[in-house]
Amino acid sequence: MSDQTQSMVSRRGFLRAVGVSGGAGAMLATMGAMGLAPSAAASVTPAFRAPERSDFTLTGRSGAKVVVLGGGIAGLTTAYELGKAGYDCTILEARHRVGGRNLTIRGGDVETDLDGRIQRASFSDGVYFNAGPGRIAQWMVTMDYCRELGVPIEVFTNQNADAWIYNESAGMTEPVRYRTAKADVYGYVSELLAKATDQGALDSRLTTEDRDRLLSFLQSFGAIGGRAGDWAYTGTNRRGFSGYPGAGNDVGSLLGTPPPLSDVFASNVGRYFSFEFGYDQAMLMFQPVGGMDQIPRALAKAVGQHRIRLNAEVTAVTDRGSRVEVTYRQGGRQSQITADYCVAALPPHLMARVPHNLGAGVTAALADFPVTASGKIGLEYRSRWWETDQRIYGGITETDLDLSHIWYPSYGFHGKRGLVVGYYNTGANARTYSGLTPEQRSERAISQGVKIHGDKYRSELVTSYSHAWDRTRYIEGAWTSPRYGTPGYNLLLQPAGRVYFAGDWLSHEVAWQHGAFVAARSAVSALHQRVMAG
Amino acid sequence: MSDQTQSMVSRRGFLRAVGVSGGAGAMLATMGAMGLAPSAAASVTPAFRAPERSDFTLTGRSGAKVVVLGGGIAGLTTAYELGKAGYDCTILEARHRVGGRNLTIRGGDVETDLDGRIQRASFSDGVYFNAGPGRIAQWMVTMDYCRELGVPIEVFTNQNADAWIYNESAGMTEPVRYRTAKADVYGYVSELLAKATDQGALDSRLTTEDRDRLLSFLQSFGAIGGRAGDWAYTGTNRRGFSGYPGAGNDVGSLLGTPPPLSDVFASNVGRYFSFEFGYDQAMLMFQPVGGMDQIPRALAKAVGQHRIRLNAEVTAVTDRGSRVEVTYRQGGRQSQITADYCVAALPPHLMARVPHNLGAGVTAALADFPVTASGKIGLEYRSRWWETDQRIYGGITETDLDLSHIWYPSYGFHGKRGLVVGYYNTGANARTYSGLTPEQRSERAISQGVKIHGDKYRSELVTSYSHAWDRTRYIEGAWTSPRYGTPGYNLLLQPAGRVYFAGDWLSHEVAWQHGAFVAARSAVSALHQRVMAG
Repeated sequence: MSDQTQSMVSRRGFLRAVGVSGGAGAMLATMGAMGLAPSAAASVTPAFRAPERSDFTLTGRSGAKVVVLGGGIAGLTTAYELGKAGYDCTILEARHRVGGRNLTIRGGDVETDLDGRIQRASFSDGVYFNAGPGRIAQWMVTMDYCRELGVPIEVFTNQNADAWIYNESAGMTEPVRYRTAKADVYGYVSELLAKATDQGALDSRLTTEDRDRLLSFLQSFGAIGGRAGDWAYTGTNRRGFSGYPGAGNDVGSLLGTPPPLSDVFASNVGRYFSFEFGYDQAMLMFQPVGGMDQIPRALAKAVGQHRIRLNAEVTAVTDRGSRVEVTYRQGGRQSQITADYCVAALPPHLMARVPHNLGAGVTAALADFPVTASGKIGLEYRSRWWETDQRIYGGITETDLDLSHIWYPSYGFHGKRGLVVGYYNTGANARTYSGLTPEQRSERAISQGVKIHGDKYRSELVTSYSHAWDRTRYIEGAWTSPRYGTPGYNLLLQPAGRVYFAGDWLSHEVAWQHGAFVAARSAVSALHQRVMAG
Repeated sequence: MSDQTQSMVSRRGFLRAVGVSGGAGAMLATMGAMGLAPSAAASVTPAFRAPERSDFTLTGRSGAKVVVLGGGIAGLTTAYELGKAGYDCTILEARHRVGGRNLTIRGGDVETDLDGRIQRASFSDGVYFNAGPGRIAQWMVTMDYCRELGVPIEVFTNQNADAWIYNESAGMTEPVRYRTAKADVYGYVSELLAKATDQGALDSRLTTEDRDRLLSFLQSFGAIGGRAGDWAYTGTNRRGFSGYPGAGNDVGSLLGTPPPLSDVFASNVGRYFSFEFGYDQAMLMFQPVGGMDQIPRALAKAVGQHRIRLNAEVTAVTDRGSRVEVTYRQGGRQSQITADYCVAALPPHLMARVPHNLGAGVTAALADFPVTASGKIGLEYRSRWWETDQRIYGGITETDLDLSHIWYPSYGFHGKRGLVVGYYNTGANARTYSGLTPEQRSERAISQGVKIHGDKYRSELVTSYSHAWDRTRYIEGAWTSPRYGTPGYNLLLQPAGRVYFAGDWLSHEVAWQHGAFVAARSAVSALHQRVMAG
């Protein structure tokens, strides 16, 4: 999820040489020939082929019996994909529901946390709260599963020009809208670069043509004046209006002139802009209609409810050489299940505590995943004041408060009620909240949100539900930070005897369902290949 | 719709003075006190109060009889709002349906243009084509009407990081995705400004603190290296991947290193970036679920179908001093309607040709609206290849081809079929297409689209329908460019005797439904005030 840059010096040097002499056309054509340029024909679908029943034709073999530990996305996908070829899969899920961190809370849902705190959600009908993942990028394999499973999708509003930015520590006493903040930052950036360029400060880097094109771009990008106006940024209607243009001669009331350059940079609003450039966060983003858990629900339905044992806590995993024995506790009773193979698709730090005979190296590797805390609160309001009063239809407000982000709902526009995510934070901020009672969490989130949204943030509240992933039994964390490239990490990519591992923690898209899906596919492919090879 | 900047020198000078000494906090507080800063409590709702039946209580008066010319958004809204107070309204609409330019085409719809060309749309069930307006900004009063009328809305995908940019005239031979183009342009812009800043070229404009903050912003904004790397932009994962990160040790395949700076600016991809900053175009944008014409349909239902006469072409308007007489042709027959007032809500250039006794000044003013041509084509495909093959779920591709824009659908994600808007152009480009037969238009659009999308752009096509607004009878144009501030424009803001004028052409939001709504409200308020005053 971080923004890593990658240097490919030799290719780059070659391309520069082509580019300099041939212009953009030659450059792009060359890139295409080298497989570097985007091509309309290029497929981004991973080269996964699901196991099929016909794979066993003429082999005399058939799908094996597999026990899957954990009914999150990775576990469900493992059973789903293996099931296509007739594998006999059983999922053991320790919680009372499938989905794992893909958790959607609705009215009537009850959760008991590690501290024994019980929360019963009392959201209204039609109101839901995605306590775990909330968004999907277009390129993610999650989209393919939604299509394949018939889970309808809609836009997740990951950015909104009318959402707020509020940096209290920078001295802001009022929030500023994204559109306003962007106009000002881009305006001043353009002014500065135009001045430097026009004064010749960059002549060693720019040709005359570059310079003219850059200046032309900056005038458009920053809405700045021309040379005669010393390229100054003095404001633009992109900042927004206090009263938008109307009938007759009503040109509207512009929001006003921008604060001085120093104040704009001191307010540090620009720190949030690059979020939307992220390969994983850029709009458009999507969500299942009706709640993120439509995905695990559809997977569970496809797998078959009879293959899923809920409230089944794994207590031991033993590789017997020719089979695997898994013992588990369900309803106060110990049971055992024997299978040809096992896929462990529960969090690594929990699997590390399950007694097994897979070796100390496996335990050490499993225990070597640093775990991140994260939490969210869902606030149901009796009115959609953010839409009617503030004209914010979805999107995210960014703050430097300990609530971090506030999400406005991407569904139910213009409805009677609605649910705002009042905080979505990680690390120390998340632990601050997870240490509080649900009532205290709500109070803390509300008391901060009113700074941005005014009194209705408190007065229109109906009910709330907060989820602390570090205090969630059988999960105990939001996501991990794999130590890629270490022997321990690589060890878990191989089966330990008859036991395979799967989960987003064994992928390069940790904390995304995409990671869980591709890791499950990887385990499925390896297992199926082994069974096919006999 | 243009990006005008407005200078408010005295306020600005004062604010600068405050800002310099007080920092961002003081600055924003001062702006708030001056009514310039965004305020959470500030309402952006126009100060319109709909006429009510109770307005006539104790006055001895009642709603008058009003004939409305034109059943577009302005005409429908006029009748809708006046109807709330019991006015007896009749709408005369020359076309066979209401909505005016708010036109949604579905399978079975038939349109005959000014040249006698007949098109019968054969789109599949559930596929629709918004030939006119397609999007709504959050602040627009159009949103309020959707809420009031119970028209459900959903996100209109006005931008997408995965849509393409293709500038053929700049020598591009392959399209580039927005995300890639943005990463490269912002990367190089950041590199250049960081270099100039660090070299002291901007010391006269920046304090030491400004400089540090700016450099920090640029590193985040452009994903550039630090001082040790001479602030160089050498690529970023924001450009995208040819293969996205996967399981195990699959870090993905970055799209490659960026083209050289000169090529990036020569490709002119940056010219499209500021579109999304526009006060009227910035995401999030919205559309009615099921087609834009859900708005006029809901308005017509609220007005009452018995008050709307279709295929009724106005042939004369005569102000008799105490009443207005309107003659119209319907089904080959001349009819007359007499009312207390008339609201002319048809295009000004058409009203200018209707015989009337309102004076030569009115005719001259009505004829003084330059008219813009615009056209769109809807292309129905048997598969949603843009989603499955190119991972584009909505959004807009920008080109310098005469098709200008390509819109991917904002509805029906993951469905079987889908409709792409194959061109949306204006002016000379629109007239180029409107001069062709529907078959020729389709062929021209397809032959260009394949350059961007490959063969499926042709091979998957099922059917198409194109709409040329300059060739549409009773409309004859897409929108106008009012000569704001001229005596002629101002003349039409006043009633000509008992005849009022309304339409987006009498607003500062031409070509937007918002303009039609607010202009109608303005006419309604003036008329109601007059009736109330007796």
